[in-house]
Amino acid sequence: MKKLKRSARLVEMTQYLLLRPHHLIPLTTFAERYGAAKSSISEDLSIIKEVFEEEGMGDLLTLAGAAGGVKFIPKVGETQAREFIDQLCGMLSDRNRILPGGYLYMSDLLGLPNLMNEAGRLFATVFANQNIDVIMTVETKGIPLAYATGAQLNLPVVLVRRDHQVTEGSAVSINYVSGSHKSLHTMTLSRRALKENSRVLIVDDFMKAGGTIQGMVDLLAEFNATVAGVGVLVESGEVESEQRLLHDYVSLATLTAVDPKVKEIVVQPGNYFSKFDAK
Amino acid sequence: MKKLKRSARLVEMTQYLLLRPHHLIPLTTFAERYGAAKSSISEDLSIIKEVFEEEGMGDLLTLAGAAGGVKFIPKVGETQAREFIDQLCGMLSDRNRILPGGYLYMSDLLGLPNLMNEAGRLFATVFANQNIDVIMTVETKGIPLAYATGAQLNLPVVLVRRDHQVTEGSAVSINYVSGSHKSLHTMTLSRRALKENSRVLIVDDFMKAGGTIQGMVDLLAEFNATVAGVGVLVESGEVESEQRLLHDYVSLATLTAVDPKVKEIVVQPGNYFSKFDAK
Repeated sequence: MKKLKRSARLVEMTQYLLLRPHHLIPLTTFAERYGAAKSSISEDLSIIKEVFEEEGMGDLLTLAGAAGGVKFIPKVGETQAREFIDQLCGMLSDRNRILPGGYLYMSDLLGLPNLMNEAGRLFATVFANQNIDVIMTVETKGIPLAYATGAQLNLPVVLVRRDHQVTEGSAVSINYVSGSHKSLHTMTLSRRALKENSRVLIVDDFMKAGGTIQGMVDLLAEFNATVAGVGVLVESGEVESEQRLLHDYVSLATLTAVDPKVKEIVVQPGNYFSKFDAK
Repeated sequence: MKKLKRSARLVEMTQYLLLRPHHLIPLTTFAERYGAAKSSISEDLSIIKEVFEEEGMGDLLTLAGAAGGVKFIPKVGETQAREFIDQLCGMLSDRNRILPGGYLYMSDLLGLPNLMNEAGRLFATVFANQNIDVIMTVETKGIPLAYATGAQLNLPVVLVRRDHQVTEGSAVSINYVSGSHKSLHTMTLSRRALKENSRVLIVDDFMKAGGTIQGMVDLLAEFNATVAGVGVLVESGEVESEQRLLHDYVSLATLTAVDPKVKEIVVQPGNYFSKFDAK
């Protein structure tokens, strides 16, 4: 490839790394790509590393040795994470979201790709070191968040369906009880979708008692797979602790109260920062 | 903010622009952010512009005047687009994808966030100048592609459901005939989800005769909205032209033949490049 000046090389390397989070890139890839000495590439990388760290973009890990290289680990800095979560809570507490029955309309927020991508970057930050093979969600509303997280962690997404689809091949189905309604539902996962012994990060948009997520956990057992973590965008705080089926999860926001009579919604930050400190 | 050296500024501006496609950013934003003169910022931008164009990353549009600024328009270069489409066709033609009934298993590919993001960048390239307000898809498999396209075009995604959900508020439902089975289905869209007179880009993972997409077109009429374009990942070439309900669309791959007996799949590039030249 043609030789690039340092300034052009920095632009090119920055975009190359940003598009490939959690990919190990050998230094020779860059050296050959730009016709530059490895020492120059190392200097470039240290400039990029410094900016990424200062701006709260993430880490640039350098792995030495023959199988070595550089890896971009996207991480949202604490200041930006707090700003994002405050913004999310503000958007969620708009009283016009209250639907009949005290349900909350969130589809407009879930329909903003950039908002979902930013939430995905938060999950990628907190689960960066969890040794995960695959992200799992159940249709429908958690899908954008699962993909946003998967893109940042460089992991595939496995989608649990409500019905068995002809385009999925043979599948495993389980029944589960949805905690909030105590009603019985089915979920199904294609045999081809998940390898045995996988470590799985479960992602969803909303959790009340956790029945749906517990269903996914039970489904994982059928594949001899294990839960590496659970991330939800919003959890309902209107659940007694003993009713909660699941206790180890990361949430970005907590819906403390929805009062359809006075049209009031109270939303607080989720447990994101407490989980983050522990890791 | 602290002053940055040119090299650090280039890294920072590159990531800032890449994270904000189709956003107009005033030069003063950068000037204040880095405590630099506008003339220095302009020089930085021309370096970035040159690299983006050479690497087939996209354009950097400069808009003059008081309301001016710079806008990153992601565009995949033709060489990369051909490479991507060839790779996609190769992945699709794996004979192990054939399911009973001649259906094709694609969930593993649809489950790769990076593959979906790259496909979304192709749609963002071909529809960059189409004056679109919103992306629309119907659950479930087209969702990741719709979000990938929406992220690159800086547009929200509206999701059509198969059933009316309690969390969607009041909704409009229509019946439609799925072309391949001639069976009757329902699709529904929340009243809140779409403003009147919107211009809508429809995105889906697969199109045979086009009955599902025609259903979305009919649904749009209920909202006085218009179709600004249709993009599908894979189209079936096993449909006679007169059976096709829809003729103006962009596809990345065409499934020419699936033969379950000899276990053969023939996949060719879709009409992407012909549509692209016409615009």
